[in-house]
Parts: sequence; C-alpha cells; structure tokens
Amino acid sequence: MIDIPAHVKLHDEQFALPYNFGGLLPEYTAFERSQVVILPIPYEQTTTYGSGTRDGPRALITASRNMELYDEELDAEVYQVGIHTLRELEPQASGPQAMLERIAEVTRELLRHGKFVVGLGGEHTVSAGLVRAFAERYAGLSVLQFDAHTDLRDSYHGTPFNHASVMRRVSELAPVVHVGIRSLSREEADWIKQRGSQLFYATQVLSTPDIATPITNALTDHVYITVCLDAFDPSIMPAVGTPEPGGLGWYDVLRIARRVAEHRHVVGFDVVELFPIPGNLAPDFLAAKLVYKLLGYRFHAGNPHSG
Amino acid sequence: MIDIPAHVKLHDEQFALPYNFGGLLPEYTAFERSQVVILPIPYEQTTTYGSGTRDGPRALITASRNMELYDEELDAEVYQVGIHTLRELEPQASGPQAMLERIAEVTRELLRHGKFVVGLGGEHTVSAGLVRAFAERYAGLSVLQFDAHTDLRDSYHGTPFNHASVMRRVSELAPVVHVGIRSLSREEADWIKQRGSQLFYATQVLSTPDIATPITNALTDHVYITVCLDAFDPSIMPAVGTPEPGGLGWYDVLRIARRVAEHRHVVGFDVVELFPIPGNLAPDFLAAKLVYKLLGYRFHAGNPHSG
Amino acid sequence: MIDIPAHVKLHDEQFALPYNFGGLLPEYTAFERSQVVILPIPYEQTTTYGSGTRDGPRALITASRNMELYDEELDAEVYQVGIHTLRELEPQASGPQAMLERIAEVTRELLRHGKFVVGLGGEHTVSAGLVRAFAERYAGLSVLQFDAHTDLRDSYHGTPFNHASVMRRVSELAPVVHVGIRSLSREEADWIKQRGSQLFYATQVLSTPDIATPITNALTDHVYITVCLDAFDPSIMPAVGTPEPGGLGWYDVLRIARRVAEHRHVVGFDVVELFPIPGNLAPDFLAAKLVYKLLGYRFHAGNPHSG
Amino acid sequence: MIDIPAHVKLHDEQFALPYNFGGLLPEYTAFERSQVVILPIPYEQTTTYGSGTRDGPRALITASRNMELYDEELDAEVYQVGIHTLRELEPQASGPQAMLERIAEVTRELLRHGKFVVGLGGEHTVSAGLVRAFAERYAGLSVLQFDAHTDLRDSYHGTPFNHASVMRRVSELAPVVHVGIRSLSREEADWIKQRGSQLFYATQVLSTPDIATPITNALTDHVYITVCLDAFDPSIMPAVGTPEPGGLGWYDVLRIARRVAEHRHVVGFDVVELFPIPGNLAPDFLAAKLVYKLLGYRFHAGNPHSG
Amino acid sequence: MIDIPAHVKLHDEQFALPYNFGGLLPEYTAFERSQVVILPIPYEQTTTYGSGTRDGPRALITASRNMELYDEELDAEVYQVGIHTLRELEPQASGPQAMLERIAEVTRELLRHGKFVVGLGGEHTVSAGLVRAFAERYAGLSVLQFDAHTDLRDSYHGTPFNHASVMRRVSELAPVVHVGIRSLSREEADWIKQRGSQLFYATQVLSTPDIATPITNALTDHVYITVCLDAFDPSIMPAVGTPEPGGLGWYDVLRIARRVAEHRHVVGFDVVELFPIPGNLAPDFLAAKLVYKLLGYRFHAGNPHSG
Amino acid sequence: MIDIPAHVKLHDEQFALPYNFGGLLPEYTAFERSQVVILPIPYEQTTTYGSGTRDGPRALITASRNMELYDEELDAEVYQVGIHTLRELEPQASGPQAMLERIAEVTRELLRHGKFVVGLGGEHTVSAGLVRAFAERYAGLSVLQFDAHTDLRDSYHGTPFNHASVMRRVSELAPVVHVGIRSLSREEADWIKQRGSQLFYATQVLSTPDIATPITNALTDHVYITVCLDAFDPSIMPAVGTPEPGGLGWYDVLRIARRVAEHRHVVGFDVVELFPIPGNLAPDFLAAKLVYKLLGYRFHAGNPHSG
Repeated sequence: MIDIPAHVKLHDEQFALPYNFGGLLPEYTAFERSQVVILPIPYEQTTTYGSGTRDGPRALITASRNMELYDEELDAEVYQVGIHTLRELEPQASGPQAMLERIAEVTRELLRHGKFVVGLGGEHTVSAGLVRAFAERYAGLSVLQFDAHTDLRDSYHGTPFNHASVMRRVSELAPVVHVGIRSLSREEADWIKQRGSQLFYATQVLSTPDIATPITNALTDHVYITVCLDAFDPSIMPAVGTPEPGGLGWYDVLRIARRVAEHRHVVGFDVVELFPIPGNLAPDFLAAKLVYKLLGYRFHAGNPHSG
Repeated sequence: MIDIPAHVKLHDEQFALPYNFGGLLPEYTAFERSQVVILPIPYEQTTTYGSGTRDGPRALITASRNMELYDEELDAEVYQVGIHTLRELEPQASGPQAMLERIAEVTRELLRHGKFVVGLGGEHTVSAGLVRAFAERYAGLSVLQFDAHTDLRDSYHGTPFNHASVMRRVSELAPVVHVGIRSLSREEADWIKQRGSQLFYATQVLSTPDIATPITNALTDHVYITVCLDAFDPSIMPAVGTPEPGGLGWYDVLRIARRVAEHRHVVGFDVVELFPIPGNLAPDFLAAKLVYKLLGYRFHAGNPHSG
Repeated sequence: MIDIPAHVKLHDEQFALPYNFGGLLPEYTAFERSQVVILPIPYEQTTTYGSGTRDGPRALITASRNMELYDEELDAEVYQVGIHTLRELEPQASGPQAMLERIAEVTRELLRHGKFVVGLGGEHTVSAGLVRAFAERYAGLSVLQFDAHTDLRDSYHGTPFNHASVMRRVSELAPVVHVGIRSLSREEADWIKQRGSQLFYATQVLSTPDIATPITNALTDHVYITVCLDAFDPSIMPAVGTPEPGGLGWYDVLRIARRVAEHRHVVGFDVVELFPIPGNLAPDFLAAKLVYKLLGYRFHAGNPHSG
Repeated sequence: MIDIPAHVKLHDEQFALPYNFGGLLPEYTAFERSQVVILPIPYEQTTTYGSGTRDGPRALITASRNMELYDEELDAEVYQVGIHTLRELEPQASGPQAMLERIAEVTRELLRHGKFVVGLGGEHTVSAGLVRAFAERYAGLSVLQFDAHTDLRDSYHGTPFNHASVMRRVSELAPVVHVGIRSLSREEADWIKQRGSQLFYATQVLSTPDIATPITNALTDHVYITVCLDAFDPSIMPAVGTPEPGGLGWYDVLRIARRVAEHRHVVGFDVVELFPIPGNLAPDFLAAKLVYKLLGYRFHAGNPHSG
Repeated sequence: MIDIPAHVKLHDEQFALPYNFGGLLPEYTAFERSQVVILPIPYEQTTTYGSGTRDGPRALITASRNMELYDEELDAEVYQVGIHTLRELEPQASGPQAMLERIAEVTRELLRHGKFVVGLGGEHTVSAGLVRAFAERYAGLSVLQFDAHTDLRDSYHGTPFNHASVMRRVSELAPVVHVGIRSLSREEADWIKQRGSQLFYATQVLSTPDIATPITNALTDHVYITVCLDAFDPSIMPAVGTPEPGGLGWYDVLRIARRVAEHRHVVGFDVVELFPIPGNLAPDFLAAKLVYKLLGYRFHAGNPHSG
Repeated sequence: MIDIPAHVKLHDEQFALPYNFGGLLPEYTAFERSQVVILPIPYEQTTTYGSGTRDGPRALITASRNMELYDEELDAEVYQVGIHTLRELEPQASGPQAMLERIAEVTRELLRHGKFVVGLGGEHTVSAGLVRAFAERYAGLSVLQFDAHTDLRDSYHGTPFNHASVMRRVSELAPVVHVGIRSLSREEADWIKQRGSQLFYATQVLSTPDIATPITNALTDHVYITVCLDAFDPSIMPAVGTPEPGGLGWYDVLRIARRVAEHRHVVGFDVVELFPIPGNLAPDFLAAKLVYKLLGYRFHAGNPHSG
C-alpha cells in the first residue's frame, strides 16, 4: 500500500505506519537490505482447550508498531539493521507433517540468502520446522528452550508432530537446554534423566542469582533460541494456552538471553504460543518487545558475532 | 458423576442437571434405551479467520440444559425417545483425512445399533465423515443442506477435506439440495449449472411463501439434513465464521424442516459451524433449540416414519 | 510485504492474502490501474459514550478479505476494476477543522487522478471533508444519506465539526436526502421543515414497497452516498454508537442503492460509524459486503455511467 | 454531584450530563415536581445459567443518557413531565420473600405520593413485589405481560418467589394477559387452559396484523404492564438469560403498547431481565427507548387518562 | 457419558477426557474407591459489584482437565488416591441459611463415608456450611484462612450469612488464623484485638522468610484450610470480586500450605471466590493447580497423617 | 438522586451507595465541608492504538465504591476529610488547546476555594492543564512523575498538546522528576541529559532499596504528583495503552509516595491513563486504592503539612 506513483501528491507521513514489525518505513524493510526477516506462522492444530495462537503473530506485530524503537539499555536503534516482515505463512491443512516441511523449506531459502530468521508462532509445533532448517545449516547447533513444559512427549493425539512433542522432535536434531520448566509428566522426567539433558526448573532460575552462567555453559557455540511464552509467569504473560503459575520474570529472561548472546553465536530464534486475550494488550506488547530485545542483544551486545 | 452407591444418602435432585443434551436425568439417557445419540465433534482445522467452532458442541449442549423440554407446537415431550450424549470425539491431529475416517467409523457403529445419529460440529468438514456412513447404510440417500455457501470448491489450502469443499465431497456420495445460499464463487456456480444441482437462493426462500414444497420435492425418500448455521440470518445467528447478510429466519427453516420431516424419511442430521460469541447466549440457544425441533419433527410430526 | 526479489524462491501463494480491501493480489491493486481507491479514515473525536469507530476501517478491511469476490446477483467479479487500498489516514490531533481539511486535500488529489473514492470511517464527521472535495468537482451534486439520525445540529461540544452536525455542514455544500431516520431533535425537525429537505423515515421505508423510486427522484444527476451504518436495524448492525431500534434491513438498503446506481451517476461514497464489537464478526462482514455491493452496482448494474 | 454553592464559579454545562434516566438536568428531576419515578431494582437470585440482570438497570440508565429526548412519533418532549430516578434498591440478602416485601413497601410509598412508578429489573421476580403494591391501590387491576415464557411454575429451586414462578404469584393478585409466549412446560400449558387465562403466542402476534385489538379487549380498565425483555426476538434483544428464537419485533410491541395506552389506563410498568452484553450497546439502548416510548404513550398518546 | 454397553465398539480413548477434576478416567473416580470428593458449590448471593463466582467451580474443573497430573515437586501422581467429582450442588433460592444447612448436610454425609472433602466456591459464604460439618466431626479444629479480607463483619445486607461475615460465623465454630490480610474495617480490627485472634498481614508474609513456622504454630492439630483466592496478588489472581493490590505470591502460599500439611492434620479444605474472566485462563488454571498441590501436600508430603 | 423530601418515607440506607469516590454518604461529600475535590476528566484524543481512557474515571470511581474506607496502615478513616466528586468534565471537541484551558480554569476555581484537587484521567495530556493552575498558585512547584515513558516529545500528530508531549509542556512550568521510566526515544534521552533532569529508571527503583530518599531529595518543597498508571508493572496494571514490561510494584510506589508526603508538601495529584479492561476489575481497583492511599499519606502521614 502507498505504492502510488510519484506524480500523485500523497505524502507518506500523512498515513499510518506501515503494518510490519516495528511499523518501519520502507527504507528499513526492503528484503535485500534487511539483515533480519520476520516469518509469521499462525499455525494451530485442532485442539480442545485454549485456542487462539493463530492470532498471535498478528497481535505481536500490531503491538510492535507502538514500541519505542530506541533501546536505552543498549543505546541503540536496533531496527537500523533492516527488518523485513513476510506475510503470514499459510497453514497446510493436509496435516502437520506437510506444514513442518513447508516451514523448513521457507526457512532454508531465507538462510540461503543470509537472513537472520525470526519465527513467530502459532503453536510451538512450528519450531520443529524451523530447527530442521537451522540444524542443516549449522553443524553442532544447540537449542535453548524457554518453556513451562518440556514438550517431550513422544506423540500426542495420533501424531508425533504436535505442541506437546515438539521438543522431542527438536532433540532428535540438536541437544536442548530446557529453562523455566515447572510441569512435566513422569515419562518426560524419566526421559530427561536417561538422556542426561540439561534442565533448569523455574524454581532454580528464580532462586539462583547467576543462573545465566550455567545455562550459557550448557550450550554449544551456535545457539537457536525457542521461547514458548508460557515460560514467563502468568502475571505478565497470561495469554498462553496452559498458563502455569510460578514462572519467570521479564528481567530473568532478559539476563539469560543477553548473556547467551554475548557468549554464544545466536543464529536465529522463535517466539511462540501467544494466544492474544481480547482487550489485554500487555502480553502482546511484552512479546513484541522481547523480539526486539533479542534482536538488540544479537546485533548490539558487544558479541564478536554481532553486527 | 453422581454414580455414588445407594447407601450414601445424597439426593440426585440436590445437584445440578447432568451435563448432556437437554440436561436429562439418567432414565432418559442410557445408551440402550435411547433412540437418539448426540455425537459432538469439536473438530476445527487450522484457519486464519474467525475461529472457535471447537467450542460449538459444548456451547450448544450447555444451552440445551436450559431449554424447555415440552414442545408446545407438537404438544410433545420429545426427550422421552431417549437421548444419549457421547463425550466429544477427539480430534485426529494427523490430518483431516484420518479425522473423517474416524467420524465415519463411529457413525457406522452407532447406525449398526439402530441409533438416530445427530452430529454437532465443529466445522462443516465433519459432515463428510457423517454422510459417508449414512450413504453406505441408506441407498438412494439425498442430502438437504441449509447453508449460506455452497462449499463446493474442489480443494482448499492444500486438501480436498475442508469446510469450503465439504459439500463437493458429500455430493460424490449423494445428491445435494442447497438451501439459503447467498455466496458462491463463479466456479461453484458453473459446477452447479453443469451438474444440474438443485439450489434455492436465500432471496428465493425469503420471497416464496411455499418454498418448502419444491424443496421437499427435490429430495429422495431418505434424507440426511446438514445445517450449517450460517444459513440463518446473522441477526439471529452471528456466531459463525462468515456471517453473510440476508439469510433465513427461524420460522423459514422450521417450516421447511417440518415439511421435509412429514413427507420424507429423515435418517439423521448435523448442526455445524457454531462459533460461540462469549457473552452472547442467543446463538447457542437457537442452535440447541433447532436440534430439539428437528428431533421433534422427526419423531412426532405425524410422519409414517416417526416413532 | 512479499516485495522480495525474484531470485528468492518464495512463492506468493504460500503466504496469506495481502492486507487490503478484498485481500486482492498485486495485479488488481496497483494505484495506476485501479479505478477504485479505498481511503480508510479511523478518525474519532473525544466523546463520552460508545467509542471504537477508530477500529472500524481495520475491521471492515479484515472482514473483506474473507468475502466471496464473485457477485452472483450481478454475475460479476467486481474487483477486476482494480481496487487500491491506501494506508489509514493519520488523525490530525490539533482539532476537527484541520482534520477535515486534510481529508478534503487527499480526496481532491485522488479525484484529480480520476479515481472513484470510497471513504471508510471513523466517525461520521469525516464525510464533511469528503463531500467538500466532491462538491468542488461535481457541480449540482446531491447527497444520499442513509442514517438513523439527521445529524443536523448546528454545533455540539463546542465545535461545528462533529458527528452530530456533519450533515448540517454537508447540507451547506449540497442538498441532502435523508433515508432511514428514526431519531431527531425538535430543532432538527423544524430545520428540515423550513428547508423543505427530503426525509424518508425508517417506518416509511419499511412500509412502502417501492420507496426506491421517490428517493431516486429526489436526487440530482450526480450523487454522493454516505452510509452511516446505524441506518440499518441493530439486529444486523449492532456495532454502532447509538443503535436505534426499528431500522432498515439489508435488502431494503440494497434495493434503494441499486436503483439509484441505475438511474443516477454515483460519484463516490463512504461507509462510516462502524464500532467493531470484539468477537462479533457479523457487522464487520456486513459493512465490507455493503462496500462491495455498492461498487458492484456502480460498475456493473447496467447504468450508462458504469464501466 | 455538582451540588456546589452558587459562589463557586463552575458552570453546570461544562460537566457531563447527570447520571439519571434521560440524563436530565435538575429542573426535570426534582422529586416533588416529577410525575414519574424510576425505581431501579438490580435484584438477582443465585442461579446457574446466564447471569447479569443485576447490571441491567445501570446499563439501561446509561444508555438512556444518549437517547434523543424528542419523540417524533408523538411530537413530544416526554421528559417534561418530570422524571425522578432513585438510587438502586439494595438487595435483601436474607431471601426473596424479604426482598419482595421491601419492593412492595417502597412502591406503596411512591404511589401514596401520586407518582407513576417504573420498575427496572433485575430479574423478573421483582414484578411480584411491584404488582403487590399496585393491586392494593387499583381494584380490578389487570396485568399485561410481554414475555417469551409464561413464568407460571408453582415453585422453583425451593422457593415460590422466583423468576420462573413470578407470574403465578402475580396471577394470584390480578388476571394476566400473556403476550409473545413461545416456551412453556406442559404443566403451565395445562394450568392456563384450566384457568382460562388469555395467552397470545409469538406466532399469533407475528401473523395477525391487528392483534393489538384482542389484546386490549382482554384487559380491564386499569392495566399494569410487565415487559420481560425476552419477549422480543433475540435478533434485537440477545441480552437476556434464555433468548428464545422467533420473538416479537420492535414495532410489534410498540403497536400493542400504544393501543393499550390509548384505550386503557396504564397505571405503571416495569422492564425486566436485561442482561447487558459487554460491548453490545444495542439491547441496552432498545430497553431505554422502550421505557421512554411507554412513558410517551402513557402521557401523550391522546388518552383521557394522560397528562 | 460413555456408559455404553460393551458390545458397542466405541473406544473410550477416542473421546475427550471426562468432565471431572483432573479429567480422570473411570478407574480413578468411582465413589467407593476415591479418598477425595470434590464438591462444587456455585453459590452466589445477589450482590451489586463484580459477579461471577457461580461460574467458578466449572472454570476450575475445566482448567484442571489440562493440568499435568504428575507433581514433580513431590514426585507423585496424586490422582491415584482417587478423586470423585460430584455434580454442582444446586443453590437453595429461599435464602442463605437454607443453603448453608444443605451444604453442611451433604458434607456430613461425605465425612461419614470417610471422604476427604474439597469444597469449590462460589462465594466465601459457603465455607460456613462446610466448616459446620467439619467442626462437628473434629473436636478442637482450627481454621487456616488465606484471604485479603478478614470477613468478620457481624452482618451485611440484612443477613448474618454473607461473604463479608463468613469468618465471623466460622470463628463461632473454631479458632481462625488469618493470613494475607490487607483490607479490613475498624470494627474488624477492633474485634480481632479483643479476641486475640492470630492475624498475619500480607506485608508480614511478604517480608518474613520463615512465616510458615509461626503460622503453623498458631494452629491446632486438626486444620481446615479455606482459601479465598483474593489472598493472592491480583497480578496472578485478578479473577476475584475485590482484588486488593499487594497480595501473596504462588510460592508464598505453597510454602505455608506444605509446612502446615507436614506438621498438622489437614482434614479438608475449600477454594472459593473464583470469578472467571472470559478469555483469561490463567486464574482458573492457578486455582485448579492449587487444589491439586494441596491434595499432593496432604497425601504425599511425608506427614504421618498422609496416605 | 435520593434528594426526596423528608415527608416521603424512603430510607436512604435501603438504596445503593451514592455514585461518588468512595461511595460516601452526603455528610462526607458536600462541597463546602470537603477538603478534597475529585475532578474526573475523561478526555482522550483521537489515536490509533489502545483506546479507552475515556472510561477510566468512571471505572476508577465505580471500583472505589467497594474499597474498604479504613486504612489499616495509617489507622485512619481518610474519607472523613470530606471528598466531593464532581461530574465528569466535558471534552472540548474543538481541540486539545481549548480543552487544556478549560481544565486549568476549573482547577483554578477549585484552588481558589482552598480545595485539594485530584484529577482523574483520561489521557496524560490533561496533566498539562492541571499543572498550569497549580504552578500559578504555588511558586517553586516541582512535579513528581511516575511513568514508564518520559512523554517529552516536542510535538506529536500535529499538536504540541498530546499524551506523548505532556511532560515537555509540564517541564516548561515546573521541574520534573521522572520515576519508573523504561522506554524513551533518543531525542528524549538527549533532552534529559542536556536539561540535567532527574530521571530514575524502573531498573534503578527495583534494585535500590532506599530509592525514596534520593527521589524526595530531588523535589522542591511544594510537589504535584502525576501518576501515569503505566509506571506500574503490567502484571498489576495491564489496563494502559502501552504496557511496558519490567515496571514498578505496588509497594515500590507506595513507599516513595509516603516518603514524599512525609517530607514535602504535596499540593495535589492526578492519576491518569486508566484504560479499563472489560471483565478485569483488578486495575480499576488498584487505581482507586492508589488515590485513597495518596490522600491518606497527604492527610494522615504525620507530615506538618497534613490535616
């Protein structure tokens, strides 16, 4: 829109900010010049409780248009790296397997062009498609999962590709470090012990001042971050499907993310499971700002990999 | 619940009505003695606009517990035929094809036991599973579709099993009479002309006093009715995904349904696409009462097939 | 978005429909080739009752992306005339006078390029800015107002530029025919009598089968239509600020609009005062379809001015 | 509020309309000079389905502050009779019997001072308290009930004072004419036949052009009107607890009410069972305008009792 | 439901989890084998502010069906003790006194059969009925109250049986320890001083690391716990009628509850005053998980009384 | 209301609490005897994101009617100073400048009569009108701003009088101390450095135990407090337009406010930007209690200026 020819005298600034992540003007969003690509994936399988993640990307992007674009913590205007927002990826209605392959395909193509890809869910399942492409590209990748649940069931509702199984699928591609956990099944608990996976319970994060260090140490050099928003405490993030009490605070997550960004190479990330609550903008806003902070840490936090 | 042993002195009437269609007490809901079985199918594929049909069966059944069980039009207490409400059929997350097969399987089993099956959606797609079982059982079946849309697309979002294609699938099993239509694509319009299908636009229904007669005449002896709730005018049925203005009134649909029930053998029906609107009980209530009226017409409207 | 270069292999059809009126693909939305331009004006003054028209354009456009684009009444694919949707016009916070001038300015520029302009409110006040530009261009213009209220107060809340005064301002530019009225002050009633303005009460429209003829006769050759959505009955259009019972039906408005389009030259129109109700898509959908029907009547209804 | 002394220079008109029925300024609301008294009774018993009538009076009064105060049907400014709005009557938490006695007491006192009393529910139960006081004052009173349900159960949930029994209680005080009925139990149907009560089904009202005449004829000279809002069709009045499809239209009720007001002495009325739906103002507005129309018919419709 | 005979081949696992606390399958819910009985009491008196506790039990149970049933803190599958969920206890509409007697009666019967009773409100008033039965059974009972308010008014709205007076009534049966208080009247403050009741303000709980010890010490050997959910901070529990800022955190309450369960004999408990907020599942989920944690502490926390 | 003459026997206590701040009875609200005047200003300019501050004052006052009026921290019944609540100040629709002048005018008049004025927004812009009157009356005034944003833009949306510029306007009248900031533009950051303004970031407040002291020290003797509610963390105050994560807690703000009240002369204050969320009473309640706590600190916290 507003792609009108020059001889028509309509001034861009008389019109509302474009609909894209950050509400950025064209000079910061062209595909070629953008280091970052936002890939919205409003995918949601049929489920029986708490639905609405399909509206997540839209709500997050809408909120992002009202964010302050200057980051005072980093003294940086992060958007200047260029952020291109794709239209929402269409669901593949024939089933989750086809959908994950489509996500992987699109991601591969974006990585091929050197983009820093940020996936926005949709339900957590989409991460399995994203990580597939990242694991192919980055040998020795590890995954940092912020989540209330381990999501390590082997299968669920007749399919191995499901929000409750997604990290089991991911763990077949790369080792996972689980952070913020406070709900899991006995089978998941046993599987973790057997595998020797690294798990940091929410209570550990909340009671250990320097938890960022052991978490960072548990990760390999190339790190993909997946943030299931229910990792946060429901007080600040009620807009999720299974809001488990006793979760992480805003600064808890930022501290860990910043440290990881400073000491590891963050190659991409996703933010998933936003179920917008009509009338309550706070969770959408938090999710949008989280994406922007993660980009800031990645591109401005004094990391040799940055910039 | 309240399956407590006799020596425990808790009186059933001190507790709320059971959660089932009609809020019926056990003497009217046991499987063996019930002529009618309600099959709730809260199935919804991933879509990008207006979601919530997965809550439809629950909302309809909840509303039904507040209906008056005496039908003064028929001077009948319809529930006395026995109405057994099944728990909700679980979604099959591996894809729509598997889901439709599961629906057909369950329906077949219920028909085998001589039950009159009422499907509650969920999205319209589920009708394709239901009709599969009915068409197997009743040779020469025809289908009466109340709907704003023809739903005759050949495929959609990468699958032939979708709410926009459901009646195309159904029409492969039995001839369909479309009633209430006011929105279709050129391709669908062409397909209907080619096929010579019977289509009654909403405007025809609204302006023709005795439209029930030609509609009935267009049907074979055994009739399955599928009611997509968007056939109704959005004034009385806003709780649908694509509420097309200019639809049918409450008495328009009842008059047609009653005449069909009196002159044909209604073998089963479904009511689909209820997207409950939080705080607005009216659409849920209409849908519940519609189910009860259809049962009343089937079992009490002086039809040789009744009773 | 999806303005990505050709060598990047992302297929447009894998992504959601673009965000514009009708969800049209680029070949139908380029400014130069589009006969129609949609101008969203989410303007709303500070008021104390029922607010939300600022979300109206967004809701209408969102709903329009799910409309069937084929119009079976006209057997036409109306979008093929080309429909360009501008970004939302920014509010001018310094006051209503500055805002109306901005609206007039933008409209003038669009008319200069031969576009058929469709304004989407926002509150009714915006029509005063739109009509200003149209009245300058079309000598002898008359205005057809669908509305529950006459909006003829001389001033309100300390300004003459207000939703309650808008048609008083418009009537200073062109004669107005009021249709659907069912609420007015004694002063407004007196002013109309004095002026000899043409007014058709809702009760007249509802009880007079061929009301379209006298309404059309009351209009000059060039007609601008302003639809305040509260003209419709609240049963189908509850999403307005002052929903007056006893209003017009869907087909009542269409019949009048079609006749006017066939016998007069409709030069532009607006649809205003949509206050979206969270969770109820029906009013948004009606408003979107109304815009599309009006475009259809204008460009396909066998009028010598069409095409 | 704004009871500030004269030497303080705050101008009343700089502040929002007072919170009372009609948003009237003090010269039209003083108790002594007001012919009409509005008595809000936000009473609601504990129930298990659809709750919210306790917010009904507040929503109705809020909506009334945005009504046009001139009635163009009657060419009258009805508020000039003076309308005093009382604060909400507190619920009596000790049980319904005590509450009904309190309502009767307050009503008696208002009638003693010659006021025309308008009760605003709250649930329908409150009418039993109101009618008690009216029946004491007016010998030979009859009651006109607009309702979807007869409300004639003998008792319910362990008490004879309940929304489902209210008209049974009322019928012990005065004969009742039931209008708009479309849902009743077999016991209620039998009781009516036995009693020979006058009942006009919704279908009769909708299909009989001059139904107002037989309804009026069924009433005695002094008439109390009780409007349970579910008498209206849910399309225009979804904001009720059990919204039965197939109800009355706006003009249906007005026509009957006007004729009754012209040929009988309307001594008082109530409007009950408004369950406001958050975000949907239309039902509140209809209810407010209904009160104002009924007052208009009573005081301005050329009835020898008026004025 | 799904009480279908064995020869009908419908597989239980194809259908949704049963509607009961935990969504447990029949082997864990039969009355005889269940140690725990859940008694939902959706009782709410007529009040004028913030209503909705009548939907509390339903929301809590619905949420509980999505809880993880394994408790990793206790390494236990708590549901294996057997949890039978009764249907909702019907309100007694004749007044609060009759209702409390009914609650006491049902509770007595359940205690007689050796059940561990968990009451779910509904408004706090219901605790007075529950405690009546417990105090009869357990001599020397004391009550641990988590609450923002003391609820010690002598009477309110014309009845001594009211949510604002409930703990005054309870204190007539057993000594009460108040925890989390941050709002009370002067009269309540004076009464507490006079009585020498133990009161722990929210600020004390928040600033005293080992507050669990003095709280436990203040209790007798047999303890009944009543949790008014407004004890929690509104950040995690906004779904209450009077959400007082500055309340308790999730882990604050758990720590106290666990210590009490380890050092005293918890004989039963209730969780009351859940006012579900449409669209916000987090409070419902917290309340459900709280019930499950309290059961876990009671039956698995290494207490000689457990098991 | 309830201004009925003495010979009419209606007892005030049978009716609901009056609609004013605190729900106070007439003896505590007469203008002359009230030390405090509440001035509700539901002003909101046209904006494009998150709207609803116009409902803020009404929601806050409604919530305040359910507050406990005894303050146990201060052992005081604060309302006894007399609190007069004005009707809402009407918006001036001609533009923000006229509106601010109207606010200043009314405030001046109230100060002239020695009232302690409390402004309730509405959007933050209104503070510029309030401070204008206060700065005229109190030489050497300073302003304590609780806020997430500095609001120091020079102009915005074509006007210098806007919620994003309000503190720039205020800073032209009096020095401002900014507390709770966590979002600002580079230009604002630069302006602050240049001006040497005192700014306390949210992170500083959260990590510095005795932050109240330096904040108090930064203020002059006469202090006006403006509380933009987004200063609070969104967990307890989601009901704002741009809810920035990482904000202040309830006790953080109280501690600062109390210390300032004890060591400085608080001459007035406002609480602005409450955007009520339908169904969530917690933020409204917090805002109401904040007003009451600030009044308590001002009039009872052992300050020589108090009383």
